[in-house]
Amino acid sequence: MSREWLDEPAKESDPVMEERALIRQGQLTKPEGSLGRLESMAVKLSGLQGCDQPAADRVQISVFAADHGVAASGVSAFPQAVTVQMIANFCAGGAAISVLAGELGAVLEVVDVGTVEVPGKLDGVVSQRAGPGTANLQHEDAMTAGQLGLAMVAGRDAVERAVTKSMHLFIGGEMGIGNTTAATAVGCALTGIEPQLMAGPGTGLDREGVSHKVAVIQQALARCDGDLRGRPLEALRRLGGFEIAALAGAYIRCAQRGLPALVDGYIATVAAMVAVMCKPAVKDWLLFSHRSAEPGHRLLLETLEARPLLDLGMRLGEGSGAASAVSLLRHACALHNRMATFADAGVAGG
Amino acid sequence: MSREWLDEPAKESDPVMEERALIRQGQLTKPEGSLGRLESMAVKLSGLQGCDQPAADRVQISVFAADHGVAASGVSAFPQAVTVQMIANFCAGGAAISVLAGELGAVLEVVDVGTVEVPGKLDGVVSQRAGPGTANLQHEDAMTAGQLGLAMVAGRDAVERAVTKSMHLFIGGEMGIGNTTAATAVGCALTGIEPQLMAGPGTGLDREGVSHKVAVIQQALARCDGDLRGRPLEALRRLGGFEIAALAGAYIRCAQRGLPALVDGYIATVAAMVAVMCKPAVKDWLLFSHRSAEPGHRLLLETLEARPLLDLGMRLGEGSGAASAVSLLRHACALHNRMATFADAGVAGG
Repeated sequence: MSREWLDEPAKESDPVMEERALIRQGQLTKPEGSLGRLESMAVKLSGLQGCDQPAADRVQISVFAADHGVAASGVSAFPQAVTVQMIANFCAGGAAISVLAGELGAVLEVVDVGTVEVPGKLDGVVSQRAGPGTANLQHEDAMTAGQLGLAMVAGRDAVERAVTKSMHLFIGGEMGIGNTTAATAVGCALTGIEPQLMAGPGTGLDREGVSHKVAVIQQALARCDGDLRGRPLEALRRLGGFEIAALAGAYIRCAQRGLPALVDGYIATVAAMVAVMCKPAVKDWLLFSHRSAEPGHRLLLETLEARPLLDLGMRLGEGSGAASAVSLLRHACALHNRMATFADAGVAGG
Repeated sequence: MSREWLDEPAKESDPVMEERALIRQGQLTKPEGSLGRLESMAVKLSGLQGCDQPAADRVQISVFAADHGVAASGVSAFPQAVTVQMIANFCAGGAAISVLAGELGAVLEVVDVGTVEVPGKLDGVVSQRAGPGTANLQHEDAMTAGQLGLAMVAGRDAVERAVTKSMHLFIGGEMGIGNTTAATAVGCALTGIEPQLMAGPGTGLDREGVSHKVAVIQQALARCDGDLRGRPLEALRRLGGFEIAALAGAYIRCAQRGLPALVDGYIATVAAMVAVMCKPAVKDWLLFSHRSAEPGHRLLLETLEARPLLDLGMRLGEGSGAASAVSLLRHACALHNRMATFADAGVAGG
């Protein structure tokens, strides 16, 4: 699988539109800056979307699902069969992200990037499998270079579908039993942060479970012999998961195609870090939605100098934190586009 | 004006419904607790609304507008005429809260509790004036006992309208040039916190302006001779404003009528503190929407042991912070009401 597409440059935000949006914010009937981040988000979206009327109406949510060989090491509170069961639940409308997508009128699709069981034919599932789950990263490389390429292309293709549908915003979600272990291993390899600072309960491990998870990650990192700093794709290949690779590919493609991406929680942020390390200009296209309850998320957000919009103690994944923040972006756009100026309204300025 | 209505008891949250909601949250297809505050808000609303299907669909936003004699002491970056100009802007749809109300499909009404100029007849304005603005609290009591009663009744009546319309949620907003000074004076009098820790830029004072505002508040507090701790209504009468009194009356009425109130920012929180000091059971009916950029807000929220949902650096008032948080409550309700259980979806539990 050719990786040439990764070399395409990222688009740039439009500084003229951003400046115009900033001027408009100063003319609206409110004290300057008094809408806080609702102002700055509207200004940023104006630049990214290259228009006077930023929007977050049309949203695509692509949930990438895959299995993890490391589940065999006993790192999750849930059995591996749940990955495929949840794919069916996404499609049937019963999962959190299904409900939120319905609330938002967002397009929801599930991309099977490689579960152990092959889900039956389900409406709304795109099959783009890189394999029947990864190998167990505790003992061996999670995937081959070919599988990494396939998984990243699955993310790229999801963004292509969003661009074809003229979406305003892309959200990538993930589902995969064991994937906080893989994400933590990648995050530690890239930042040098110790696993005991990064690893958390994931879906609900107790203290003993978290200690075991730390030991598994330490063994995986030792196996890689500390040579992964500054090599994001190699870290992803040796320690990651198909859905994490797909998210990284999606974020890179968003930047290349000029589509703002609203980043979800811990696992999505690890993927975002991989994408930004591959191509620093990707960072401009990422809006960070929330700070997860997973302890490592705070550390990764600080490393990325990212300030999320929400901090509600969520830790579900699926794109649910990002979906919860969409309304704030919509409010920001509505205020920017529809408030009266001091001149329009005949209100005396400050 | 009789104040007997203030003695009516607050309703109580339904513990059976709250317990049922908590059990349901544990059955939904997600790790327990993984939706963070979206879970706890749904559980709380179930108890408050006494039902299995909590909702935040029907929302009334009542913006109380009034003028402040202390504006003559030069405590605002905006001229006093702006209060009435903004009333017209609320009605014409150009203000932030107008745009947000439109986005939410909320009922928006403006209550004139006492501006200096009488606004002309405008659709959507309720006239319930306690006077042509307050007296200057720097030098004399802001209002008489009769005016305080009238202003609180304006708040009570707004809640009565919301109850008549079967609203799920009440939001009180405020507009009044000079009102962060009045709110700060009341907040300091009730908590004993020093004005220099509480006072902030409001609509946009510079450092010198804030120092002047602190001096004005210190003089007002000295005039009251420190006898206001534990006397919330007297603090409100001597140092407050008509819109702050209306908000306090509204929160008390929400608790009496069993209507959850989503509290806005700094000024609304001062009013909430007055209401809770009058009647501690009011606290149960208050959901705190956001932490304002105004420095005193953090201190007041800590005093109330209140954890707001949002922290976006907003400081506009009008109810805009509360309106911005409504979508989170709606998401919380939708998730609670519509997600599948593990049993429904055939997903293995943790």
